[in-house]
Amino acid sequence: MTKARIVVTLKNGVLDPQGKAIQGALGHLGFEGVGEVRQGKVFDIELAGEDPAEAERRLADMCDKLLANTVIENYSITVE
Amino acid sequence: MTKARIVVTLKNGVLDPQGKAIQGALGHLGFEGVGEVRQGKVFDIELAGEDPAEAERRLADMCDKLLANTVIENYSITVE
Repeated sequence: MTKARIVVTLKNGVLDPQGKAIQGALGHLGFEGVGEVRQGKVFDIELAGEDPAEAERRLADMCDKLLANTVIENYSITVE
Repeated sequence: MTKARIVVTLKNGVLDPQGKAIQGALGHLGFEGVGEVRQGKVFDIELAGEDPAEAERRLADMCDKLLANTVIENYSITVE
């Protein structure tokens, strides 16, 4: 069993209204000096098999097909 | 300017229907051997100031007040 974490973030230059809303909310709560906030997604996935390179290849395939919209999002994969 | 990443994940034992749906979708796409999938959130935040310890303290405060629901979610903070 291999455990992995995938982090999907918006590409630079893609507007992030949710991040902007969080930035505004933090300001309203009294937090000062908050600059840009960008929100992304994280997936913790368990995979059968023990080969990290094979796991990473399959996870990249999952990102391309389902987990990330590669037009506007980047992903990074960390196999534990 | 300090950059930090906050990862918010569901606590163990908290049901994650979104993760279950992703697990099912990956199976339908033909990916075999996919075990548990848990989805979380990631926030990339820029903060004024250069002191990492102070930044971490403020970010934990933001998590407690806005970014995480600490009844059902854990958070981890990484200051770059």
